[in-house]
Amino acid sequence: MNNYINNNKDRFINELLDMLRIPSVSADPMFKNDVLRTAEFVKERLEEAGADKVELCETAGYPIVYGEKMVDPSLPTVLVYGHYDVQPADPYELWTSPPFEPVIKDGKIYARGACDDKGQMYMHVKAFETMVQTGNLTCNVKFMIEGEEEVGSSNLGRFVKENRDKLSADVILISDTGMLGNDTPSITTGLRGLSYVEVEVTGPNRDLHSGLYGGAVANPINILCQMIASLHDENNHITIPGFYDNVQELSQEERAEMARAPFSLEKYKKALDLEDVHGEAGYVTMERNSIRPTLDVNGIWGGYTGEGAKTVIPSKAYAKISMRLVPNQSSGEITEKFRRHFESIAPKSVKVVVKPHHGGEPVVTPTDSVAYQAASRAYEETFGVKPVPVRSGGSIPIVAMFKSELGLDSVLMGFGLDSDAIHSPNEHFGVFNYMKGIETIPLFYKHFAAMQQAHR
Amino acid sequence: MNNYINNNKDRFINELLDMLRIPSVSADPMFKNDVLRTAEFVKERLEEAGADKVELCETAGYPIVYGEKMVDPSLPTVLVYGHYDVQPADPYELWTSPPFEPVIKDGKIYARGACDDKGQMYMHVKAFETMVQTGNLTCNVKFMIEGEEEVGSSNLGRFVKENRDKLSADVILISDTGMLGNDTPSITTGLRGLSYVEVEVTGPNRDLHSGLYGGAVANPINILCQMIASLHDENNHITIPGFYDNVQELSQEERAEMARAPFSLEKYKKALDLEDVHGEAGYVTMERNSIRPTLDVNGIWGGYTGEGAKTVIPSKAYAKISMRLVPNQSSGEITEKFRRHFESIAPKSVKVVVKPHHGGEPVVTPTDSVAYQAASRAYEETFGVKPVPVRSGGSIPIVAMFKSELGLDSVLMGFGLDSDAIHSPNEHFGVFNYMKGIETIPLFYKHFAAMQQAHR
Repeated sequence: MNNYINNNKDRFINELLDMLRIPSVSADPMFKNDVLRTAEFVKERLEEAGADKVELCETAGYPIVYGEKMVDPSLPTVLVYGHYDVQPADPYELWTSPPFEPVIKDGKIYARGACDDKGQMYMHVKAFETMVQTGNLTCNVKFMIEGEEEVGSSNLGRFVKENRDKLSADVILISDTGMLGNDTPSITTGLRGLSYVEVEVTGPNRDLHSGLYGGAVANPINILCQMIASLHDENNHITIPGFYDNVQELSQEERAEMARAPFSLEKYKKALDLEDVHGEAGYVTMERNSIRPTLDVNGIWGGYTGEGAKTVIPSKAYAKISMRLVPNQSSGEITEKFRRHFESIAPKSVKVVVKPHHGGEPVVTPTDSVAYQAASRAYEETFGVKPVPVRSGGSIPIVAMFKSELGLDSVLMGFGLDSDAIHSPNEHFGVFNYMKGIETIPLFYKHFAAMQQAHR
Repeated sequence: MNNYINNNKDRFINELLDMLRIPSVSADPMFKNDVLRTAEFVKERLEEAGADKVELCETAGYPIVYGEKMVDPSLPTVLVYGHYDVQPADPYELWTSPPFEPVIKDGKIYARGACDDKGQMYMHVKAFETMVQTGNLTCNVKFMIEGEEEVGSSNLGRFVKENRDKLSADVILISDTGMLGNDTPSITTGLRGLSYVEVEVTGPNRDLHSGLYGGAVANPINILCQMIASLHDENNHITIPGFYDNVQELSQEERAEMARAPFSLEKYKKALDLEDVHGEAGYVTMERNSIRPTLDVNGIWGGYTGEGAKTVIPSKAYAKISMRLVPNQSSGEITEKFRRHFESIAPKSVKVVVKPHHGGEPVVTPTDSVAYQAASRAYEETFGVKPVPVRSGGSIPIVAMFKSELGLDSVLMGFGLDSDAIHSPNEHFGVFNYMKGIETIPLFYKHFAAMQQAHR
């Protein structure tokens, strides 16, 4: 298969660049037609790669691209999940090249979605093509590629519920995570959940002159700042009552195991140009961003933000706030606890509205499953070292949903790097990583099929 | 003179509407040509009204319109100050009619600048025309109308220093303040000073994915909120060291005197749709917004503020913060104390930059002066009641500068109302107030001339 991959390398890359040129930003209605064009694009590529019954499954939002290749009912079936939508690209001015005009610099593909998730999703399409063309397809395959992951996959749950038979499989394969480094492959075994809310604080019923009213009425920005500040205590613990109730504390052994993963705090600070890190007392950096829940303001705005100075007390101030959750917190419960607490700390001098956005549940995947072992061997063959199991701080809410709705575990075979700047300006994906993924995935199929047979 | 005023009422109003159609927003370079056109407009109207030597005096910023009418060197001279620039009009969507397409509804002129200060400044031009046309000009007059008041009058000080002789006068007359009500005229005898800064908080050197980094690095928005929140204590006292050092405390008598001004807290709250007011412990509303210093965030922004949800930890967060000052605080000192304090409370995990904008000094004007007495009589004749002396919370920094540079006191004959929504959407100015101003101003000239003569 490696010959086939090498001979088609340039085409594999160019097809990805073509997809990256379509700005499929699901969060912004302005890009609606581009998101739809991207779905079409994925459908056509899947057909060309050899998939049958390829279709755009309509939802209340953006369509889900489905395709399959049933080789033999006696073979195990792999359900591949990925998404063709991308994060908003702003702030555009911080990109060194336009986010939707992909360029390759020093072996890296620069574009919004290069890694998350167009690049990693397309590895599966090209690995599938390779297996089909070289007669090495050892499993049945089903593809489910959605277009709303970056806005909470709000219509995927219903689609899965309504298509349980169609989606029946032995394992779910997802590449939407990263690994520790190109010389330190890793497989993600845990993901954080998410609660996301938008808050609005209203003071006076209109913008006011800060000279005539300053000091006499509640300034919604000052109040919002005070409310947000009060959500953490001096140890950076979150102060929402009951927030930590169901948090699964790791044993000293588990924490010791985690600590073995290679990590340099100095390199970490240097890479982000930080004089110091900042987080919950009693935990180290790699724990703070993986096994501990968090609360971050993702956006804040209010008053005059233009050029120069305006002496106004605005009527309203807003913030977007997200909480990362860990087992066994529940997104719905945490969102509700946040709402109740945030409303309760609002002074009488303002009005507060809390609007929930999407959420997702945390998950931990087993490392003793056939699927994990097959993935581990695949990485070991292509990278030459055994991959490390790692719990990631990110969220792929649908992993927990797949488990509950389809009873299937997911294997998170990520090939991206933390330094790929996903969700940031100048997102990129190494050509090395893209090609390694295309090489490694077929080996997973091979080992998974063999081990499943042995199991029977 | 009242006949002349009544016969020309419609023209007086239409000329103001013409000026209001020019969006002279000095804070936004986008409107540069409009600001310049407005200066031209004022120059032409002054010439038509009968002023001599009318000219646009160039500065490093927008020009100052100067004009004069020297009737007789033995007569007292009144120097009229006003400004032709206006505040930014955003948020535009909250205006019921476009800010630069003036309309008259229920006896009020709606437009940005209708009251602050085009409307009030233009009363002086029309009062001047009236006195000239009816042969009632009892004083020499000089006009100094600037175009940078809303951005700190940064070039006026130098102009005044360089033109001391040209600007020599007996009193400065300004209408850029309000009165308590149409049945309760008042004259402003005190103004608050201003310190205005912009702060920038930088966390990581790029936007980060809040899942992969959340909890492990300082989020500049959370930190900015904590820093802003810490600037007030639980009694809403400002915590900047030395902030209150030079604050002039009023005597119980003075506070009792202030308390006599008619004020209804219920009406106040109802007008702003507030369940409760909010301010410094130990002081009532009318004290909080006049004799006490304040700190307000006028604008804040950072992270993702668009549609939908984005899980980002931004690299930077920003805020515009202004402090209103009272005698005898110094704007320069307070700005410096803010900078030192704000930098000192920043955790090591972020970098902070404090950029000072314009400032201004607080001032209290005498009520026993000839000029104040003349103004008081003028109001009494047109409104039928004696005006109340009031200390306003607003700032007209140049009043203190005139005192120090020209040795002249100012009389603040305001005809606007707090409800005029200056600096807010739907700013307006009552036709009643506009015409009352045109009636009242000539009476000030009459009494001032007579009392000055008597004084000699």
